Amino acid sequence: MPTPHLVFTTDFGLSDPYAGVMKGVALTINPLARLLDLTHQISPQNVAQGSFLLGLNHRFFPSDAIHVAVVDPFVGTARRPVLIATPWGRFVAPDNGLLSGVLTDYLEAPPMTPGLIEIPAEITAVHLSKSEYWRHPVSQTFHGRDIFTPVAAHLSLGIAPETMGDSIENLFYLPMAQPTLEEGVITGQVIYQDVYGNLISNIAAQHLQDGKPIEVQIEGQRISGLSRTFNDPQHGSDARLVALIGSHGYLEVAVPNGNAATLLEIAQPEGVPVVVVSG
Amino acid sequence: MPTPHLVFTTDFGLSDPYAGVMKGVALTINPLARLLDLTHQISPQNVAQGSFLLGLNHRFFPSDAIHVAVVDPFVGTARRPVLIATPWGRFVAPDNGLLSGVLTDYLEAPPMTPGLIEIPAEITAVHLSKSEYWRHPVSQTFHGRDIFTPVAAHLSLGIAPETMGDSIENLFYLPMAQPTLEEGVITGQVIYQDVYGNLISNIAAQHLQDGKPIEVQIEGQRISGLSRTFNDPQHGSDARLVALIGSHGYLEVAVPNGNAATLLEIAQPEGVPVVVVSG
Amino acid sequence: MPTPHLVFTTDFGLSDPYAGVMKGVALTINPLARLLDLTHQISPQNVAQGSFLLGLNHRFFPSDAIHVAVVDPFVGTARRPVLIATPWGRFVAPDNGLLSGVLTDYLEAPPMTPGLIEIPAEITAVHLSKSEYWRHPVSQTFHGRDIFTPVAAHLSLGIAPETMGDSIENLFYLPMAQPTLEEGVITGQVIYQDVYGNLISNIAAQHLQDGKPIEVQIEGQRISGLSRTFNDPQHGSDARLVALIGSHGYLEVAVPNGNAATLLEIAQPEGVPVVVVSG
Repeated sequence: MPTPHLVFTTDFGLSDPYAGVMKGVALTINPLARLLDLTHQISPQNVAQGSFLLGLNHRFFPSDAIHVAVVDPFVGTARRPVLIATPWGRFVAPDNGLLSGVLTDYLEAPPMTPGLIEIPAEITAVHLSKSEYWRHPVSQTFHGRDIFTPVAAHLSLGIAPETMGDSIENLFYLPMAQPTLEEGVITGQVIYQDVYGNLISNIAAQHLQDGKPIEVQIEGQRISGLSRTFNDPQHGSDARLVALIGSHGYLEVAVPNGNAATLLEIAQPEGVPVVVVSG
Repeated sequence: MPTPHLVFTTDFGLSDPYAGVMKGVALTINPLARLLDLTHQISPQNVAQGSFLLGLNHRFFPSDAIHVAVVDPFVGTARRPVLIATPWGRFVAPDNGLLSGVLTDYLEAPPMTPGLIEIPAEITAVHLSKSEYWRHPVSQTFHGRDIFTPVAAHLSLGIAPETMGDSIENLFYLPMAQPTLEEGVITGQVIYQDVYGNLISNIAAQHLQDGKPIEVQIEGQRISGLSRTFNDPQHGSDARLVALIGSHGYLEVAVPNGNAATLLEIAQPEGVPVVVVSG
Repeated sequence: MPTPHLVFTTDFGLSDPYAGVMKGVALTINPLARLLDLTHQISPQNVAQGSFLLGLNHRFFPSDAIHVAVVDPFVGTARRPVLIATPWGRFVAPDNGLLSGVLTDYLEAPPMTPGLIEIPAEITAVHLSKSEYWRHPVSQTFHGRDIFTPVAAHLSLGIAPETMGDSIENLFYLPMAQPTLEEGVITGQVIYQDVYGNLISNIAAQHLQDGKPIEVQIEGQRISGLSRTFNDPQHGSDARLVALIGSHGYLEVAVPNGNAATLLEIAQPEGVPVVVVSG
């Protein structure tokens, strides 16, 4: 059996050596470690974005993967380093809400306000307190290198989670903004802009399942109907905008062979209202 | 025998999780998959650039490599997903011209206009139509994740190409702009600008083989002679420009320890005329 | 025993296929090569920055790692391609000062001016002159692909360093700017800005070991005291700046959840004076 993969999700970027150094540290502990990136380009210190992307994407990786997730604006302060084992992947991260997107799948009624939640039955969680599984000296500013990666590398060697700290009963949960539904009108918002300028909203495919004709409104533009692909002559707006269910399973607004964020002159995409009127 | 490498060439960039997710999907199918990137930073939807860079660079990889090439502006429409097996590498891609740079090596007289070509004898091609080798549900907007990578991962497990679809006799070919030669004057154009601001033209080394003294003209500047390296005191222009045969085997224009694109104030490099006058 | 890792540190960026092509070449020579990046985003042709980051970070990788370091403004000219074997890693690089940060650890009194130094006793060095271990044809502009990576791949196969060239007794050394200490005042400078806008100085932790209260001055701003973490209410400046010992072991200036370089309106960070007044 080969060693399970370590998958990194951070806001470290790729300009600095931070991502490379974490991999070096992993290999120093487990010379056979297999290393992979989800992305190192979460917007700096944007825990909500990291939570969203990790929640959305972790199931595309093998279920034995060990995820190292580090978006950690309060590194070195009281927030706990934690490890959770779920039916689909293990996760090492600061307990600052970054794992909320992963936890949501297991919650019957996700809370609407940030705060501690009880850990779902399918999941075990550990507060990483045993420093013998860390790299020393431990810096105050780079726990990705000194705590999270070393713990993940030890996990990949078969060290049991409960050996590395004390079981805990709750975790900090950061809810994602939810759309409101009222009399045939869904009011959501943009939660992520990708490199193509596509604007991904928090309106999930299932909100739109009744098949009624819809109109999507964003920044004063009206888009008639849902396109099936980026190039669909049946639908769209005068301004070449289209709306479709993206590969994430959420409603997104795009410009075929163009950039919706640029066309709409959106500087700060997160939070921009997206309204769907149906019927 | 270790499993052959999967080599990715896409326009997905590295900010979003798209590249990482494709790797996760590959590992879910072949847990021993070995994963490598040529680049994920083809200019968005620039099929011609992807074709050029893949053609130029695939022979630097092992001949058993499986290339996953995805620059796919018409994803989800009628363009076929295809797989070709060549003497130097197998390639999974949309049939939109992206494999033209690879095919050119095998064509006696590459056509000058875009269109279907007959497949050269050394190559076998398959229209990927067997959905049992895909990931489900198949999205309409991310075939890199749902079709191309799963097919490549199955290939790496030893599944035969013809099992995954029907043999085809032609492929879509997108010609690269060719330089014109007339009375000692070669008129080409810039086809690629690299991160250093070097301007790579479509004038190949063999066009210049007769050893006569030359002058290179670009954007009103005149460069006297070909330099052997970036730092060659014998040749160049008043504006510090040099011309040389780059590592790609094509004439390129550079500024030693500087940026030619910036110096020449070129905003859109592709298509900028490059003229060589010899004798 | 698995093959030792090849770790790349270059200024090639990730937009172009250069980094990918080097990996392809390595695998063509050693099909089992294990490939890793420290970073490909050293500032273009900034040998001093490459030297600093490689010196600082190579000890986070396994001690049997083979580092391929390429920041090579004078590629194709007389500067020698070299290989050094140290107690903590082997390094293949141009002899242009890029290995100075690694060499510093072994020097009793590092010179203050650039020039040739005698090689420390713990280190062996070879001038790479045997072209049978290179890729052919050898370009004049991409020795990373044609010389350094092929040599590293051969090393990973167990070929002995001395087989690949002639032993040498000296190497080119490029000193890092050193802070001056005078009557309780340390005057250093910024040597690196990371992706968060943190400004890393050349003032090492040990310069500050006496525990006296200090004030840090940069660009007319005064920062009172050293913070332990990025979020430390005890210290800082009116402008939200904090000073702390970063994960590199050097004094750095940061803005909690912000960007110090932007706040201070610093366009060119390297060389900006940082002054520490103590007592």
